[in-house]
Amino acid sequence: MTLPVNLLMFGNTPDWLAFVKSASICFGVGLICFFSAGRKRHALKQRQMFILTVSAWIFIPLFSSLPLLLSDLELSVTDAFFESISGVTTTGSTVMTGLDHLPGDILLWRSMMQWMGGIGIIGMAVAILPFLRIGGMRLFATESSEWTEKAVPRTNRLARGLVFSYLALTLGCVLTYWALGMDLFGAVNHALTTVATGGYSTSDSSMGQFDQLSILFASSIFMMLGGIPFFLFVRLLNGHAQPLLRDQQIRFFIKFLLIIASIIAAYRVWKDGTFPLDAFVHALFNVTSVVTTTGYASQDYSLWGPFVVVLFFFLTFVGGCSGSTSGGMKMFRFQLSMLLLKEQVLRLLHPNAVIARHYNGRIISDEIVASSVAFSFIFLATLAVVASILAFLGLDMTTSLSGAATALANVGPGLGDTIGPAGNFQPLPDAAKWVLMVAMLLGRLELLTVFVMFSPQFWRR
Amino acid sequence: MTLPVNLLMFGNTPDWLAFVKSASICFGVGLICFFSAGRKRHALKQRQMFILTVSAWIFIPLFSSLPLLLSDLELSVTDAFFESISGVTTTGSTVMTGLDHLPGDILLWRSMMQWMGGIGIIGMAVAILPFLRIGGMRLFATESSEWTEKAVPRTNRLARGLVFSYLALTLGCVLTYWALGMDLFGAVNHALTTVATGGYSTSDSSMGQFDQLSILFASSIFMMLGGIPFFLFVRLLNGHAQPLLRDQQIRFFIKFLLIIASIIAAYRVWKDGTFPLDAFVHALFNVTSVVTTTGYASQDYSLWGPFVVVLFFFLTFVGGCSGSTSGGMKMFRFQLSMLLLKEQVLRLLHPNAVIARHYNGRIISDEIVASSVAFSFIFLATLAVVASILAFLGLDMTTSLSGAATALANVGPGLGDTIGPAGNFQPLPDAAKWVLMVAMLLGRLELLTVFVMFSPQFWRR
Repeated sequence: MTLPVNLLMFGNTPDWLAFVKSASICFGVGLICFFSAGRKRHALKQRQMFILTVSAWIFIPLFSSLPLLLSDLELSVTDAFFESISGVTTTGSTVMTGLDHLPGDILLWRSMMQWMGGIGIIGMAVAILPFLRIGGMRLFATESSEWTEKAVPRTNRLARGLVFSYLALTLGCVLTYWALGMDLFGAVNHALTTVATGGYSTSDSSMGQFDQLSILFASSIFMMLGGIPFFLFVRLLNGHAQPLLRDQQIRFFIKFLLIIASIIAAYRVWKDGTFPLDAFVHALFNVTSVVTTTGYASQDYSLWGPFVVVLFFFLTFVGGCSGSTSGGMKMFRFQLSMLLLKEQVLRLLHPNAVIARHYNGRIISDEIVASSVAFSFIFLATLAVVASILAFLGLDMTTSLSGAATALANVGPGLGDTIGPAGNFQPLPDAAKWVLMVAMLLGRLELLTVFVMFSPQFWRR
Repeated sequence: MTLPVNLLMFGNTPDWLAFVKSASICFGVGLICFFSAGRKRHALKQRQMFILTVSAWIFIPLFSSLPLLLSDLELSVTDAFFESISGVTTTGSTVMTGLDHLPGDILLWRSMMQWMGGIGIIGMAVAILPFLRIGGMRLFATESSEWTEKAVPRTNRLARGLVFSYLALTLGCVLTYWALGMDLFGAVNHALTTVATGGYSTSDSSMGQFDQLSILFASSIFMMLGGIPFFLFVRLLNGHAQPLLRDQQIRFFIKFLLIIASIIAAYRVWKDGTFPLDAFVHALFNVTSVVTTTGYASQDYSLWGPFVVVLFFFLTFVGGCSGSTSGGMKMFRFQLSMLLLKEQVLRLLHPNAVIARHYNGRIISDEIVASSVAFSFIFLATLAVVASILAFLGLDMTTSLSGAATALANVGPGLGDTIGPAGNFQPLPDAAKWVLMVAMLLGRLELLTVFVMFSPQFWRR
């Protein structure tokens, strides 16, 4: 919190008092926690880790909202908390308008929330969720021992590698944006929110403020990198490039982006006579933005026709790769479903055949498939409940459906006149904003982490 | 085809020539097929059964469309075929307007198409699909031997029981409607399309023409009966009431209908001050109509507010019980998904626990769960593709999404101004109608029956 005031904002910190107050509150609460806790170290039990994980994702946004609340923005408590939950979960839905005229320190704080949220997500995906058997990262463990409690030294080494990759990627993104013509402030802000696949921008027109194909293309590449399993970057640092280049999830992810972007580009060339290069870069940028759950927009793609709108509605669910900063259902779940389908067709034709499931060169157990499938079911069921509640609160069908999807998948923009890529979440009723906040947290915690806590077994003994 | 002309329509058969011509064509083609085929009987192989099943569901609607095409209605080929596919698959989407002023023989033919489609679906679900390992009916077999080729005598007895139940249910429905005040023609037509969960009516205002709570309530009961596994009626005929009364799928189905109807009724009482009994009966009727994939409407429920619209959108997917005349994803798949989820939560808390899945008092194998899950995935993936194609053809988002869902689930009405409960499929472009026809057939054939034929393995050797 002191960073926006001290380091990057010399001479342009109208809200310095808000940041100093917020930092003081955090420091004070931290001190109280530190001294009220005992000295002895306890190993966390599984249930405690569930509670710790969920409460961390509630309290960090709570404290992060302080600078917004204490500044001169006159945000309501609901709006400040919405903005910080949307930030820390790297969703990127915003209730703030007139971004172009906001003080720089507030804009930088928004970007920083997303950036810190991003590394938090990777850490959680790699270190905590596999221990809780959630999220499918077990699928990618090299050895079954990799996620056990005894692997702490290895985990520490892994953590250092992840932070280093994240920093390197961010720095690379800052320099690229800067070299391509953004000013340094814009480059830093957008690099922070690109690598975190967050989507906050410094302008109401999002990345549309830079109407330059080279920036959009570079941004697409960095969003893709942010949507790739980060532990593969660590392998790369250790000199192993093969796992990154041969990864089945990454190949599918890149192919998927290129195919969908090409379809949309071809449609626009055919229908509106758009210049092919423009059409492709804009399509790639916006598709990558939604699929990696970043949520930037270069143009109001909802004006590209109902075909594109329906495609973007479905793209909202998809998500990037597991172990990245992106949200959504994630590529590997679709790949596992397709494997299951193929297996099913084979079994229809050869009822007695013995079929082994292979993914990334490994045999996939029934347990992993069941876990992946349970997630898909609960994701869609939760979507139905959230969309119904939003509609109950008076939102129209497009806003309810796309709002529920964009919040649960941590994407950012929805569809329709209000929350579409050219819109804003400001006009929604407060109750709807709270529902969306809950949905963002549920999505970020891979749903099961929270739902487990609602089972009676969790609280027994 | 001669039935509408001869039996029920004395003195009111303006289209008698069209029916006689159609019947002659069918008889001629039948004769050619009969004499061109050899005398020897062959046992059908599995691949031949796939091809036979799929082609039956293409050729029966083709021949059924003849009376519509040859009558004085001046329907285009597309519209006539749409109407008969929608009829035979018991979808109930219609392209015909001014139903109230149509000749009775045409109306009766529409109802008959649905009724014959209904018994065809039950027969396919009980006798063919389990043999092809599709559709989940294996889940309900009492003995593993029940679906083998050796069980022909038992299958014949089962078939007679199914036909008898279907006839008895239809007769009961005719008499009930008649007793409650419908004229005999209306009672016959609506009984045929109620028991088949089809949804064709004799009026543009569907069941809204009978603004009488007792008729709507009776119709809800008969739609529910049409949405129940028919082989349980056969058990009942054989003196076993327990399987019907204790069936877990039926209990869930009834509970689900009552809960959703109560929520909608409460919402309307609270929001519009509707009289509670009216609100409940209309809610129960329309919810039952959509969930059993019948597709009647008693009122334009899309005017009940966005909350109800969003609920109905999700209800479109659900479907009744397996082994009934209804379509959609079917209740038992949701139950299996919930079992899987429960299992998953238990496993998160007790990683080493051994968990047995029970459904209807039986242990469920991984293969059955995988087959159920593969279906859910392919259903939703197909929905995305169909909706995208419809949007590509220029339909708006609500029409594309709800049109794809209503066709794939064989429900009938969609949402939005064009194809909503008060609307009609007539204004859609021809290309969209063909896409919807394919979707109706895919849904009716439980998708996999068709998709298997696209696998290279199917055609090998």
